[in-house]
Amino acid sequence: MEAQLTCEIVSVGNELLIGKVVNTNASWLAERLTRLGVSVKRITVVGDNLSEISSCVSEALSRRPRYIITTGGLGPTYDDITLEGLAKALGKPLILNHDALEMVRGKYEKMGEELTEARVKMAKMPEGAEPLPNPVGTAPAVKTVSGGTVIYALPGVPREMEAIFDKSISKEVSGESGFRVAELSLRVTGVKESALAPLVSRVKELYPKVYIKSHPKGSEERSLIEIYFNAFHRDEAAANRLVKEAAEKLSRLIQEAYGKAVSPLEGPT
Amino acid sequence: MEAQLTCEIVSVGNELLIGKVVNTNASWLAERLTRLGVSVKRITVVGDNLSEISSCVSEALSRRPRYIITTGGLGPTYDDITLEGLAKALGKPLILNHDALEMVRGKYEKMGEELTEARVKMAKMPEGAEPLPNPVGTAPAVKTVSGGTVIYALPGVPREMEAIFDKSISKEVSGESGFRVAELSLRVTGVKESALAPLVSRVKELYPKVYIKSHPKGSEERSLIEIYFNAFHRDEAAANRLVKEAAEKLSRLIQEAYGKAVSPLEGPT
Repeated sequence: MEAQLTCEIVSVGNELLIGKVVNTNASWLAERLTRLGVSVKRITVVGDNLSEISSCVSEALSRRPRYIITTGGLGPTYDDITLEGLAKALGKPLILNHDALEMVRGKYEKMGEELTEARVKMAKMPEGAEPLPNPVGTAPAVKTVSGGTVIYALPGVPREMEAIFDKSISKEVSGESGFRVAELSLRVTGVKESALAPLVSRVKELYPKVYIKSHPKGSEERSLIEIYFNAFHRDEAAANRLVKEAAEKLSRLIQEAYGKAVSPLEGPT
Repeated sequence: MEAQLTCEIVSVGNELLIGKVVNTNASWLAERLTRLGVSVKRITVVGDNLSEISSCVSEALSRRPRYIITTGGLGPTYDDITLEGLAKALGKPLILNHDALEMVRGKYEKMGEELTEARVKMAKMPEGAEPLPNPVGTAPAVKTVSGGTVIYALPGVPREMEAIFDKSISKEVSGESGFRVAELSLRVTGVKESALAPLVSRVKELYPKVYIKSHPKGSEERSLIEIYFNAFHRDEAAANRLVKEAAEKLSRLIQEAYGKAVSPLEGPT
């Protein structure tokens, strides 16, 4: 079996570092990538700062993931400098991309607006990069390749980021990975997480390909634990079988040890 | 003015890398630290993987922030390995800490439960580290120092992480940053939290420097809400004035809207 494809996410924006905005872009991307069979290895948040962005991308490149996806910092304002940071990390100049300029020009023409300097800036990208159309906003996204890593730079506005991912990236990734994911959750009440731990370990040993994680959701007095299972396989039926068997095994162990009924949660939670 | 104190946040957990959980812990900490006068430079998310955790902490240490705060991976299960990763990054052994063991033992004694191996595990920490009490959960948090960096390791369950930060870390940080905190709580009976929410939002807009958080303490039948206020300022009198004005404004709004008397609680709660 080939190694699983890997990805790092780099989120750019001061608003994330002062806690004004929660990083839902990273969790949205992480969920999508996971379902596409990609293993997200790291998520890094840095501010709108040239050297921070470029060193963060360089560090990610040195770990050789198949993909790096950045979000944020593609807009027209002075502190939108993700592509400058990306160019610096790649050792390439930032140049005006004519395809990108046509995309930007077309957007503003439709709105009956001029192509100001701030707007032209959105068409400047690292030499050799390819613009990806933005179906719901003005700043094009960017795709570029460095060694064995494909880098995508997406805008920070969630609906733009999501639309570009779904339109331009999703199919490329699933075509490469060929993996399918199966997921399942159980809910256990009245047993503490520390009491479940040895049973989870036992099942984990029996099913090393199944990822199992318990999430305490109750209080100290009234324990409620959700146990999440997933497995990846090129054969969807095999993935489903794996998580089902692991979940059934754990349910039985819990019933034997504590006499507690375990309720399955339907599908992913 | 001296240079601003800096912090890096390291969030540990596979659930964050598969998009199952949004990283609200990081944004909560980032907001608190910002109010305490600390500049958060980077947030990194890694999985429950020993070498990932240790290299992530090592990299953060090499950038010499004043603080590193980790969240997640302190619990009793086999994949809670943050402290092992931290020990590896510090080049120290992971040893049983007797103060921590007493904390854990006390928690389970109160619940009338045994101290199993999985529970003893929560008292193992890097040599030289200091346990911090967990007022709402079982796993103690950890404080340790490396060079000029203070490292705090907090649990991933949000209410535990928040309680430990507020109880053990907040004052240390504000003491160093020179920012003073003023705190105040109000108690409101007979008004539901959702009915208070728009009034709280209004006061937040009027006093953007004041942190306001409502805590429901009653039952569904008999609503009791504690509303906590804090503000940070280098000038203590200014901090006190800010929270006092914000609390008085909210009291007036509640009385106008619902005719309910609001009683002040003395000091921090």
